[in-house]
Amino acid sequence: MTNAITLESIRSCWGRLRDKGPRVHCITNTVVQGFTANVLLASGAIPSMTTDPAEIGDFARRCDGLLVNLGTMDADRRKAVAVALDAAKGKPFVLDPVFVDTAETRRAFAVELLSHGPAIVRGNCAEITAVCGAKPSAAAARKAGTVLAVSAETDRVITAAGEHRIENGHPYAALVTGAGCALSALMAALAAVEQDASVAAATAFAAYGLAQQNAATHARGPGTFAVHLLDALHALTPGELVAMTRLS
Amino acid sequence: MTNAITLESIRSCWGRLRDKGPRVHCITNTVVQGFTANVLLASGAIPSMTTDPAEIGDFARRCDGLLVNLGTMDADRRKAVAVALDAAKGKPFVLDPVFVDTAETRRAFAVELLSHGPAIVRGNCAEITAVCGAKPSAAAARKAGTVLAVSAETDRVITAAGEHRIENGHPYAALVTGAGCALSALMAALAAVEQDASVAAATAFAAYGLAQQNAATHARGPGTFAVHLLDALHALTPGELVAMTRLS
Amino acid sequence: MTNAITLESIRSCWGRLRDKGPRVHCITNTVVQGFTANVLLASGAIPSMTTDPAEIGDFARRCDGLLVNLGTMDADRRKAVAVALDAAKGKPFVLDPVFVDTAETRRAFAVELLSHGPAIVRGNCAEITAVCGAKPSAAAARKAGTVLAVSAETDRVITAAGEHRIENGHPYAALVTGAGCALSALMAALAAVEQDASVAAATAFAAYGLAQQNAATHARGPGTFAVHLLDALHALTPGELVAMTRLS
Repeated sequence: MTNAITLESIRSCWGRLRDKGPRVHCITNTVVQGFTANVLLASGAIPSMTTDPAEIGDFARRCDGLLVNLGTMDADRRKAVAVALDAAKGKPFVLDPVFVDTAETRRAFAVELLSHGPAIVRGNCAEITAVCGAKPSAAAARKAGTVLAVSAETDRVITAAGEHRIENGHPYAALVTGAGCALSALMAALAAVEQDASVAAATAFAAYGLAQQNAATHARGPGTFAVHLLDALHALTPGELVAMTRLS
Repeated sequence: MTNAITLESIRSCWGRLRDKGPRVHCITNTVVQGFTANVLLASGAIPSMTTDPAEIGDFARRCDGLLVNLGTMDADRRKAVAVALDAAKGKPFVLDPVFVDTAETRRAFAVELLSHGPAIVRGNCAEITAVCGAKPSAAAARKAGTVLAVSAETDRVITAAGEHRIENGHPYAALVTGAGCALSALMAALAAVEQDASVAAATAFAAYGLAQQNAATHARGPGTFAVHLLDALHALTPGELVAMTRLS
Repeated sequence: MTNAITLESIRSCWGRLRDKGPRVHCITNTVVQGFTANVLLASGAIPSMTTDPAEIGDFARRCDGLLVNLGTMDADRRKAVAVALDAAKGKPFVLDPVFVDTAETRRAFAVELLSHGPAIVRGNCAEITAVCGAKPSAAAARKAGTVLAVSAETDRVITAAGEHRIENGHPYAALVTGAGCALSALMAALAAVEQDASVAAATAFAAYGLAQQNAATHARGPGTFAVHLLDALHALTPGELVAMTRLS
């Protein structure tokens, strides 16, 4: 693998997010819109979220990064995705293929979106496998032509050249709806300030995982955890990332 | 009334929810989707929430229980309900007739849904009355062919055979949007692991009410209360339910 | 300017909200529906939020105030706005022209809505400027025929007769999605219990800003801040408003 993913490149990428405050347009499901927007705001990005085909072009044109999350997809949203990808051409987009392993219509749409060249595809192993037609691997990343960001107890960033692992995080995150969806939005924010998408993916895993660990020290359960996660993202410094990221 | 609803059957039902982690598909309004999903996750169930008619069948087919909440209904959602009920045939579904006392179109739709045989209809007294065309009673439950779960300061579970009362809960819940909607989702989760729907309804009232009481000890107002309610549901043990449920 | 906006009229307006518990129907974007409903509940109002054109008339007819927020507008919502304005004729409505400075379709729709006579238009300076075609001023308010409520570090209530300033609030609010949208909903609640819309707007700025200051004393970041803001609104007394509002 290239040596792009290092503690230093992660530190620098997180710092740039704070300095630049990129605009991230999110096409995402209604269940998680509020939490996703709050994760972006706490991290230093500026979210917008319309899915109306008649106006999404105006928002996508001036965004710095785009999220396409396939949760609660309907006909209007599919149209909105097409308009947004066209208006945001040349800007990085992150694909979150939520539950594509469950619904065939979603899987087919996700595969179609691969041809638009997402900077990153983020999901769990089953979702990434369904999109790629193969287990996540360097070969699968090469064939898909994108960075694969695979969420699990140990997160993985996979490119055609190999993979890195990040071992930060806390189990409560699995009990917070939209925790994964918001992570994908954070990747879009980081990809907007970092040309190497694999560094953006690794930075998101590290920052989000470390913020989870910090949040857990104040939490009594998954409810307080989600609230403190926003505080922890807001407070997270580049220096803490260098000290605490478990990268291999 | 049958003697099915006992502290022991409630204890056992709650324990089974934790052991089995049923999938619950929720057709619910966009205001409360996030909170509802978090209540299910904190309680041990696995939520999904799409309302796209083109893909809801895939989700309903593999769920263990279904929630049909009539808040923010539109034409697409009505179609989605029909597809989901068909795909989930034989699985328990809970009907939450939100505000049917206000909108005649909703009331008519709720009455139509009664013919599909919901395991439980949960609402406040005005809503249940509008659906049944009569005050909640054993006769109304018999005519409707379902279990009536009536939320109030004292909650009631009414079947054709009679009624039980549960006196747990906290007034802050009335100031949390979606608190009732999420309770209906929890009933769907419990009905998925308990054949006697009246036991599922009573368990939901008891667990949700007791979690509210526990949450209130950490809360400073309705905002912190809602967050601590999730923590309290996550922490709630079958043993606590036996000790603290006020059943009559 | 008229002398309507005083500490005493603000005190009285907030007290009336608590006494009367007005119904507020909100046409607002899906990102912020949950938080908006919780702000209204914590403040003493009763929210409803459907946007289905087939049933919104039933809700708008019995509401005491209406919010029209232009976030995530689509064709169905535009229809819903028309039905709701007709059904709620004679009741105060608040227009929140979210991001009209970004999307031309939204701006045109906002201008069209001005002709329906909103009690208040609330937004930031760029949004109000886009709607009015001029910087917020007494002349712009006279031409628009409404009260302009301009959110900024120093909030302003502008009528044809002049302007008042309110300097309460906390910077964390800018990191909470929907904080502004929920404020507009609160203005609709206050306009429902106060004939002078400028007093309703000033009361909302004062109460919301002071609740933010109180919330900040318990917050560790934007996540806990948003939760404590709900508690602080619930606890806020008319007497505190008189003591702490910074009005000029």
